[in-house]
Amino acid sequence: MNGVTRRGLLVGIGAAGGAGAMYAAMGALGLAPDSQEKAFTPPQASDFSLKGKASAKVVILGAGVSGLVAAYELGKAGYDCTLLEARARAGGRNLTLRGGDRLEEANGPSQDVKFGEGVYFNAGPGRIAPWMVTMDYCRELGIPIETFVNNNAAAYVHTNGQTVRARTARADMYGYVAELLAKVTHAGALDRKLTKDDQERLLEFLRRFGDLGPKLDYEGSTRRGFTKFPDIGTGTPLDGPQTLRDVLAAGVGRSITNDFGYDQATPMFQPVGGMDAIVNALVEKVGADRIRTGVQINRITNLQDGVEVTWNGGSLKADYCIAALPPHVLARIPHNLGAEITTALRTPQPVAAGKIGLEYGRRWWELEDRIYGGVTETDLDITHIWYPSHGYHARTGLIVGYYASEKNAELYGALTPEDRKRRALTQGKKIHGEKYRQDVLSSVSIAWERQAHIGGGWVRWPDFDSSFTLLQRPAGRVYFTGDWLTHLIAWQAGAMESARSAVTQLHQRVLQSP
Amino acid sequence: MNGVTRRGLLVGIGAAGGAGAMYAAMGALGLAPDSQEKAFTPPQASDFSLKGKASAKVVILGAGVSGLVAAYELGKAGYDCTLLEARARAGGRNLTLRGGDRLEEANGPSQDVKFGEGVYFNAGPGRIAPWMVTMDYCRELGIPIETFVNNNAAAYVHTNGQTVRARTARADMYGYVAELLAKVTHAGALDRKLTKDDQERLLEFLRRFGDLGPKLDYEGSTRRGFTKFPDIGTGTPLDGPQTLRDVLAAGVGRSITNDFGYDQATPMFQPVGGMDAIVNALVEKVGADRIRTGVQINRITNLQDGVEVTWNGGSLKADYCIAALPPHVLARIPHNLGAEITTALRTPQPVAAGKIGLEYGRRWWELEDRIYGGVTETDLDITHIWYPSHGYHARTGLIVGYYASEKNAELYGALTPEDRKRRALTQGKKIHGEKYRQDVLSSVSIAWERQAHIGGGWVRWPDFDSSFTLLQRPAGRVYFTGDWLTHLIAWQAGAMESARSAVTQLHQRVLQSP
Repeated sequence: MNGVTRRGLLVGIGAAGGAGAMYAAMGALGLAPDSQEKAFTPPQASDFSLKGKASAKVVILGAGVSGLVAAYELGKAGYDCTLLEARARAGGRNLTLRGGDRLEEANGPSQDVKFGEGVYFNAGPGRIAPWMVTMDYCRELGIPIETFVNNNAAAYVHTNGQTVRARTARADMYGYVAELLAKVTHAGALDRKLTKDDQERLLEFLRRFGDLGPKLDYEGSTRRGFTKFPDIGTGTPLDGPQTLRDVLAAGVGRSITNDFGYDQATPMFQPVGGMDAIVNALVEKVGADRIRTGVQINRITNLQDGVEVTWNGGSLKADYCIAALPPHVLARIPHNLGAEITTALRTPQPVAAGKIGLEYGRRWWELEDRIYGGVTETDLDITHIWYPSHGYHARTGLIVGYYASEKNAELYGALTPEDRKRRALTQGKKIHGEKYRQDVLSSVSIAWERQAHIGGGWVRWPDFDSSFTLLQRPAGRVYFTGDWLTHLIAWQAGAMESARSAVTQLHQRVLQSP
Repeated sequence: MNGVTRRGLLVGIGAAGGAGAMYAAMGALGLAPDSQEKAFTPPQASDFSLKGKASAKVVILGAGVSGLVAAYELGKAGYDCTLLEARARAGGRNLTLRGGDRLEEANGPSQDVKFGEGVYFNAGPGRIAPWMVTMDYCRELGIPIETFVNNNAAAYVHTNGQTVRARTARADMYGYVAELLAKVTHAGALDRKLTKDDQERLLEFLRRFGDLGPKLDYEGSTRRGFTKFPDIGTGTPLDGPQTLRDVLAAGVGRSITNDFGYDQATPMFQPVGGMDAIVNALVEKVGADRIRTGVQINRITNLQDGVEVTWNGGSLKADYCIAALPPHVLARIPHNLGAEITTALRTPQPVAAGKIGLEYGRRWWELEDRIYGGVTETDLDITHIWYPSHGYHARTGLIVGYYASEKNAELYGALTPEDRKRRALTQGKKIHGEKYRQDVLSSVSIAWERQAHIGGGWVRWPDFDSSFTLLQRPAGRVYFTGDWLTHLIAWQAGAMESARSAVTQLHQRVLQSP
């Protein structure tokens, strides 16, 4: 099983040892998924009445998605939850910026968001795969969703200084792959592998797959696109194709496979109006009065009969604690949970990630490029350009001018907001031309590694080792949650699944306690 | 250039002679698209004031999309247009059915539409490609659009009695194609075709494309899907892969390439709330008072100084006429335009096409199959199943239970509405199981070949021959329009482009008239 998805490579052990190593590691650790096969059952009030128990008091550190989901699920059974959040707002990395917002940055200038009415920028998560639990929460919480276009044949691929439409790159690559395999098949190279019947079936597929001519040649295809699309006439197909050598040299193949993975496959989804609709709905369900913002924990003490949490100017005692913070943030808070916990928390490494939102006065990508949503893939430091999957045909709009991680993110993060914008525009111009620098109304950029109390876009585990398994279980009365404790790192779904796991464990414990 | 798209095969000369023949034919006929390269300039009132001319009176036969667009564009310059429509409503094949509507059928029972609030069924066109002029009209007319999911990795492919997810079919086919080509490349079979460097680049692509193992074997992939998707754990991948022989025998390859064509590529779009938003907006712009419904023309007379159109109980004289009817309908109306015109009108052959809308009391395809929009491809007579790309997570919803053409459409068309439904449910059950026949609230089916004054889903030209070119030009003062006169047959964009062409010709003539 070769679990190579782009995201997997970015965020997982894959970066170090290849995804195969990850799965091997999992098996060796006894983390076979069968043991988690059971569907989640939310706690409910009747669980207590049946067993003659009472719900407990829980302090939740961090009001990100994981902390909020934990509070929401525990709240269904009447648990008395308090969320302590160091930042000014709940939501954590689920952050949607709008006009009037102010984005602070650790050791950097703050940015005033000046977007016009109705324009928003999902600075954190921006898309949801349909199989993810995030969709279930959208349904349960009544959050309207709409399609997020993650794959667009009309978007561009920019590699080695060349720009082509994704449809063109794909048609040429598939055309040549089909031609090469069809011809060696025809020449008998597969005679010992495949029966004649199977060869015929294969050839039938390859003809369709590559849009091959009668002699199994790839001579171009209308799939590549047109300089003028058909109307009354047949249209004017693009010149081409390029030679196989040029197609290979352009290195566009990487982009073609972007949506093959189970996490990036078409279609994907987004909440209407901004990803923080999820945060807002959870906050409403949990109760805003249960969330205390601006509270920076300075000690976690596990006690015989509870947990005490202290901060500058206050403290709180509860029966249990859910620590829903990033591991590298949590590791810096003094506690009495033992050195092994600290070591485990220090194991996953934060990864830099950043995005810029560019608000334009006109939607030139729709008007001139006929790009409605989707992603342009590049080998530039901006990595991707996202076009909006909503507000089609509006007067203005926002595109994501870079979505970079690791070194590229650090490069942008180290710049001032003005220089980030300047660089992003210079890079984007290589693809879209001078119009990319025109009609820019405003911009906001985020460097997650520079966000206070967050300190990274996500984490990378050098190994999903014993630290990973250790933190799946409580240390005394303290539970740990977050996307970083799952195999859905960098997805909200991970935060949610982790919260569900902790909630299930905590609730079972309360029900079984003497 | 091998212009093989599925739609092209369905509707064009491709069915007879291969698409290559079509392009050759075009070239031979002097229809090189360069001559139509000029963008459309709508007529405007100032055209007349500058030239000292006056606009003219135009009678338009048929208030389908083509007739409406012609009236709309001519109206911009003050032309006095009257539309005569034989049916009870404007819109033609752009037909959206809702609760309370009644669908009549020639020589068949009528159907009362019983859909619940907010449920609709696009009985005619259902999707728009982003490059099409239809998008421009949506923008110009202020019609909100949303993504239409035309490709869904979670939808199914059903062939030869087997059902697999599209993602699984694709992963296996790509995996084996990559493995086969990688291994023959590795074995030196391409040494005379490709340099070693190019072979390395090709292998790099194939590894990604097929998710191959280190020894270039395809051993399955997480891209195939999971019985349990990753969460805290790594998930449980689907068993597999199937053998190459089984994959080839399943014949799933045809479905994989469905969205490769320029007309079906991801993403596609639809008006919010139903395709007839386009009709409604055009009717409003044109003025409902200019449209006379229930008018069945029985003669068209081209005169020295105008055109006279008569019907049972009335007649109308205008300076020009735009005949925006299907050719097979127009051919049956007596006229004095000459035998050559009649012969030309009889050349394109109407094609049967039908759809059924199945309204369900619960969206089981989302709840249980995690299918949010998209199309399941089958080798059954239902051909396709469409899942809705809107109303996600609503309580009820409508899926298109068949979208068939040619023989399959005729098969369904010949049944009673009740039998169409029964048959569609029986077929769909082969894919989705017994739940497909449960919770059905209501259904409506259309057989376009049985719709009065329309008589087909679209037409097929045996050849884009001299009849096609003849009808691009007026016969006397009568102009012809419709998708059938374009290379966008069966697309609204064809109707619109054709209308624009006639409007341009007519307006030039009026401006140049003495």
